Amino acid sequence: MGNERIPVLEIFGPTVQGEGMVIGQKTMFVRTAGCDYRCAWCDSAFTWDGSASDDIRLMTAEEIVSELRSIGGRRFAHVTLSGGNPGLLKPLGGLIRLLHEQQIKVALETQGSRWQEWFIDVDELTLSPKPPSSQMATDWEVLDDMIERLRKNGSDYSLKVVVFDEADLQYALDTHQRYPDVPMYLQSGNASVTETDQEKLLEQLRSRYEWLIDQVMQSEQWKCVKVLPQLHAWVWGNKRGV
Amino acid sequence: MGNERIPVLEIFGPTVQGEGMVIGQKTMFVRTAGCDYRCAWCDSAFTWDGSASDDIRLMTAEEIVSELRSIGGRRFAHVTLSGGNPGLLKPLGGLIRLLHEQQIKVALETQGSRWQEWFIDVDELTLSPKPPSSQMATDWEVLDDMIERLRKNGSDYSLKVVVFDEADLQYALDTHQRYPDVPMYLQSGNASVTETDQEKLLEQLRSRYEWLIDQVMQSEQWKCVKVLPQLHAWVWGNKRGV
Ligand code: SF4
Ligand code: SF4
Repeated sequence: MGNERIPVLEIFGPTVQGEGMVIGQKTMFVRTAGCDYRCAWCDSAFTWDGSASDDIRLMTAEEIVSELRSIGGRRFAHVTLSGGNPGLLKPLGGLIRLLHEQQIKVALETQGSRWQEWFIDVDELTLSPKPPSSQMATDWEVLDDMIERLRKNGSDYSLKVVVFDEADLQYALDTHQRYPDVPMYLQSGNASVTETDQEKLLEQLRSRYEWLIDQVMQSEQWKCVKVLPQLHAWVWGNKRGV
Repeated sequence: MGNERIPVLEIFGPTVQGEGMVIGQKTMFVRTAGCDYRCAWCDSAFTWDGSASDDIRLMTAEEIVSELRSIGGRRFAHVTLSGGNPGLLKPLGGLIRLLHEQQIKVALETQGSRWQEWFIDVDELTLSPKPPSSQMATDWEVLDDMIERLRKNGSDYSLKVVVFDEADLQYALDTHQRYPDVPMYLQSGNASVTETDQEKLLEQLRSRYEWLIDQVMQSEQWKCVKVLPQLHAWVWGNKRGV
């Protein structure tokens, strides 16, 4: 049973989901520890860089559900599993089963570097491969295989690429053209993660989002795509746990 | 053929859709003239208050498609029909058929006061009944019937209520509880449609959105719901035609 435990860093909510295919959704968050990537601009590096290792709790699925209920009461019907890379954690399958038994839907985001059988049980799955600015390399064979399985299963899933610059946008386009039938989300990167002046941050986020919109609107190659900001950064700035 | 013409006020894009179920979507807009409502806070009153009546063009579906192509070129695969209330216009059915022939998807928003047979051809249909602050009254029988038809058809549709105050939020909850299986979107109202100072506007929109989030997050009655701002107002302020 020991290896059935899940390394958890944060449980909070309900709040709104700020990104991608579930943008705006009222949801609880469970943030797991550990990632196989080290993205240059990772906004949750504390999940893997050791800085929060004292806060990691090894919890069973039952303990997580009971903490979700003690924090969120009966005020939610949706849970988002995030990380780090929750796709590394085999025992999340059991957690998803427990949540479904309570009529709770589950969304999950992963960079798509590792397949788990329970991916097909996720109600809204976001695959977020990382563009060049992250300094990570995508394993396309793994992603091809993942998308093939999700497609066969009839899953509700999407691709989301965070875009900081032109090279990232080209990477996003290559990804879109490789999987033209998969719903595609572009998200403007938050280059101002250390900005604490709320007004300046809002204007920086706005102008990065507008830049991305302009690029995509002018292009014939981008036809069917959604372009979104990180909503929570607009509302709450760079605060954690909201 | 004369009555097959469509009263058009604006054709523009591509830009991003700022609201509801298609938020972030790259799309062209066709804004039709005429509305059977007079909402107190209507942000497109020029479509019905006579102030832009000289700009109305009576166009055939073919003319609209050809203008969409001349403005948007091959840079789009999605068109949003808005108003006013485009649900008043029988000949939009022909326009949707033409767009589908060119593999273009069609989204439409209406307050849901009038049924059209072609509603079942719309790819993403938003029904946006108006809350008390609009000073309009909802005809629930018409809406019941509309939702029944869309449900039977297996349409991709949703409800969206704009919320300015507590009474509006209660109206939204009543609507949600009347149609619990219909995807529900809440949108914070823009009470600052005359604000031209971009910084002030952003902060006002942010704080109204945060208020709405707080209300919904604290409530046990709101479980499965999406809460969104008007994205285009955040990006472009109160400018028209972007
Ligand atoms: S994959 Fe995600 S959690 Fe992992 S390093 Fe990159 S941004 Fe951070
Ligand atoms: S229904 Fe829409 S277009 Fe008509 S008056 Fe109300 S807000 Fe304006």
